[in-house]
This record gives sequence, C-alpha cells and structure tokens, in this order.
Amino acid sequence: MNPDLAFENIVVVGLGLIGGSILQTLKSQSYTGNTYGIDSNASAISKAKELSLIVNKDQNIETDLENVLVIFSVPTLSITKAIDDLNLSTEDILYTDTCSVKSSVLEDINSRESKFLNKFIASHPIAGSEKSGLVASTSTLFDNRLTIVCPHEKNEEDDIKKIEAFWNNLGSVTKRLPAKNHDELFAKTSHLPHVISYALMDSIFKDLSNETFLYSGGSLESYTRIASSDPLMWKDIMIANEKSIVESIENFKESLDALLEMIKKKDSHELINFFTDIKKSRDELLSDDKN
Amino acid sequence: MNPDLAFENIVVVGLGLIGGSILQTLKSQSYTGNTYGIDSNASAISKAKELSLIVNKDQNIETDLENVLVIFSVPTLSITKAIDDLNLSTEDILYTDTCSVKSSVLEDINSRESKFLNKFIASHPIAGSEKSGLVASTSTLFDNRLTIVCPHEKNEEDDIKKIEAFWNNLGSVTKRLPAKNHDELFAKTSHLPHVISYALMDSIFKDLSNETFLYSGGSLESYTRIASSDPLMWKDIMIANEKSIVESIENFKESLDALLEMIKKKDSHELINFFTDIKKSRDELLSDDKN
Repeated sequence: MNPDLAFENIVVVGLGLIGGSILQTLKSQSYTGNTYGIDSNASAISKAKELSLIVNKDQNIETDLENVLVIFSVPTLSITKAIDDLNLSTEDILYTDTCSVKSSVLEDINSRESKFLNKFIASHPIAGSEKSGLVASTSTLFDNRLTIVCPHEKNEEDDIKKIEAFWNNLGSVTKRLPAKNHDELFAKTSHLPHVISYALMDSIFKDLSNETFLYSGGSLESYTRIASSDPLMWKDIMIANEKSIVESIENFKESLDALLEMIKKKDSHELINFFTDIKKSRDELLSDDKN
Repeated sequence: MNPDLAFENIVVVGLGLIGGSILQTLKSQSYTGNTYGIDSNASAISKAKELSLIVNKDQNIETDLENVLVIFSVPTLSITKAIDDLNLSTEDILYTDTCSVKSSVLEDINSRESKFLNKFIASHPIAGSEKSGLVASTSTLFDNRLTIVCPHEKNEEDDIKKIEAFWNNLGSVTKRLPAKNHDELFAKTSHLPHVISYALMDSIFKDLSNETFLYSGGSLESYTRIASSDPLMWKDIMIANEKSIVESIENFKESLDALLEMIKKKDSHELINFFTDIKKSRDELLSDDKN
C-alpha cells in the first residue's frame, strides 16, 4: 500500500471518466489495498474488472470492509440515490465525492444521520474532458490539477487531511473553499463558459454547413470543445447550481449588450477602450498565474 | 528565387504579426527576390531591416520596381490610407491584402481606377495569434492554415492563380469565396467568438480576483485567450463587419435566452435534449472535418 494512503479499501461509486481515472491512477501507482467499483451499469463493472481496476465482478461487495474510503463519482443529482444504495456496515470509513456543484451535495448529506454527515468531506477535482465514460479514463487525469476540498463544520481536521492526502497522492494540488464560495466561483469560471459554448453551437448550427470548423481556422473548434461534454452531467450541474448560474448569465448578458451597443454605434473610441482594458486585465491575470 | 513565386519584388505594407510572418517565411525559404517593408512606425522598419527581412531601411523605396506583389497587411480600416500612401509607378504589379473583413476592402478598391481595381485580389489568411506585432511573427504561421481568396469580377484568372500560388508557397491551403459570403461566415465563426470572449472577460472581471484562472482549471484561460488579441485590429473588424456581426450576436442571444429559460425552469428533459443534440451535431462536424 502506498504509504501516503491511509485507506486499506477504496470503493468508487460511479465508473465514469473521473471514477475510472481514480482507479487507473491507483493501479499505475501499484496501490496495494483493495479497490471496488459500483455502477448502475453492470457492464461498466465487468469492464473495470477486466482491466484489473477493481476486485469485485458485480454489484455485490463485502459489507464489512474496514478502513474504507468511499468516493461518490456520479452525476451531481444522482448522489442521493448513490448514497441510499450504499450498503456498508463499517464505521471505520470516510466519504468524499467528485461532484461539480457542492451546495446540493451538502444539502443531501445534511439531511442524514450525523455519523455519515461528519465523515463526508466534499471534494471537486477540477479535471475532466469533453470525452466521458470509463473508456476515456486515464492515470494522468489529475496530474497537477486542482482539487477543491469543501469541508463543513462537522468535519474533523484529521479526516480532512486524509482526504487532501488522497487527492495529493493522485497527483493533484488541493485547496479548501467553503461550498457556497465554490459554487458561486465555478458558476462564473466553468458553468457559464459551458452555457456559452452550448448557446454558441446552437446559434451557428442553424445555418452553417459541415464546413463550419474548416472556415474557423481552428479557434471555433477549441472554443466549442466543451459543448461535447456529457449531457447528463451538465444537465445536473445546471439544475443543481441554477441560482448562481442564472446570475452569471445575467451578468454576462449585460456585458454582451454593452458591447453590442458599441458595435451598432460603430464607436471607435469606446470599442478600443473596452478591448484595451480587457486585454490589459487578462494579460495581468495570466502573468499573475504564472508567477 | 523560389520557382513557385512569380514576383521579383515583394512589398509588405504593415509590419505586424501577419506582414512580419510573411517576410519571415520568405526569408526561411531563401526567397531570392527583393523584399520591402513599409510601416507608419519607423522603428518597425528598422527592426525588420535589422532582422534581414527587408532591403529598405526607411519609408523610401524605389518607385520603379518591376514585377511586384504588394501585400497590404494593415488593420482593416487603415487600408484606404495605406493604398493612398503607396507610391509605385510600375504597372507590372499585383495587389493583395490580409484584412479580416473583405466587403469594406472591396468597397475601397471599387472606388479606385480600374488598373488598380483589376489587379487587386483580396485575401484573408486564417492565421493569427493573441500576440501581435513584428516581434511575434514566425516563419510557420501559415503552415497548413487556410487562406481565403475573394476574387471580384474584374480580376483575371491568371492573376488570381498567381496570388493563390503565393499563399500556397507560404504553406497555406487556399479556398475561393465571394467577399459577401466570407464576411457573413466569419461573423459567425470568428468575430462572434471574439465578441463573446470579450464580454465574458468583462463580466467575470467585475467581481473576480486574480485567482480566476487558477480556479477555472485552465478551460477559462483557453476560452478567453482571444480576448488578448490586438484591440485596434478588432475595433476595425467590429466596425467594418458591423451588420453581419450584429446579426450573429442577435442569433446567439436567442440561443442563450432559450437555454437560460430551460435552466430557470430546471427542466431536465429540455436540458438533456438540448445538450444531447448539440453534442451529436458537434461530434459529427468534427468527424467530418477529420475525414
């Protein structure tokens, strides 16, 4: 067992891109504990077993495992059912998840008994791809990527540290952030860009042929990449973080309308100031990040 | 002289990213004709001379050059002044440009005498970067990139072919498209994404710190890259292609509003259909492009 890993047994619930990549990474590190996989799709379990990612061959896993980490790696709105379905008797256990929205997860776990609530430390690895499913999983998905850990007031510091060490061990850098801040921030930096990408694809599809990308010189292709993301996952995110996302869209529309007016007026002076200010701020942000 | 190049003299007007990269590419190919550079900024000329990209050391170039190609590589709305300022006496000459909007260029050249109009074949190399200026120019900018050639009815086929051969020689693939179609298409595939990128940066700047990109996991960084583009160049594009750009923004807003309503209603069914349709269409477009 990797000395950095405090767990003898790891149960991944949801064998998609993220869950699969956690298992691929553990395998590549020759993790000597036992790994288990649960998925509503039986063939995903068979496939994971075939790839030697897990030890179980079907939904039935031992219920008396000791020293367990359970990771719920399911679409955001499926977490309630995933928790309900879990059937482990041990109390020597920690829980985490990989959902992109944290308030809705907290809302669910807050409604549960305290021995579960106290031991659930919410996480969000900022890693993904427009590709989805176990087939797309890799052992390098978390390399140098950020994982946000959103502890709540009932969590104990020792447990939080174990969860952080787990993510660090997979290659990612951890940062703590309260769930509410996480959701407001990601509404802007991730959910809004996805909304825009979907809307952009929708609007240009209406009258462009399959030569669209050819004529874009590649920038549109990269710009709309995220619109190929998993529809179920993103439907859940939109619903679970509705309030913050709607607010971020309304703010974006204000900026868009302001720019639209400048263009309609062909206002050279306003346009060049607007573009120059944005370029300046963005260039500064980038150079800050690189320091 | 490269046998594919029909010109003994090449004059680049505007020593920015595109003009500079044309000269860098010719130099890397050991072009044996003479190259000249004109720029309103005297230091750009000195710099280009220092880099052995051009033979002239100031604005004064011989006016009786024979067998010349002149390339106007200036911001879209500067082309009138650039043409007015050009002082070449020869009639053994072809003209092209690299502007991102073609109708406004055609409008200018249509107002000029026919010996100029007939010899001007408009071009648009679909290559660029958020970096700008001679300092950012490279000899590989056009490699395998598309160059749109927009001939008008007074151009002769032989001349059009010479311009296409020039771009092919620089490494790019040429396609012909009428100026009107070019402008409508690029309003959607290039100008609209830039508008969105600027508006997105504007809206998220309002309340995010310099940790913005850190928390976006990199996707926002690539998504807003184009908002660091040259402000003057993009101010000109917005004004020169105002009608098509406004239309593309209005269409985009319709798609955005439709999606916003689905999110507000938390309509699972509509959201998943919307995302699935878009993913399907985009995946098909990509696989078409790769064939």
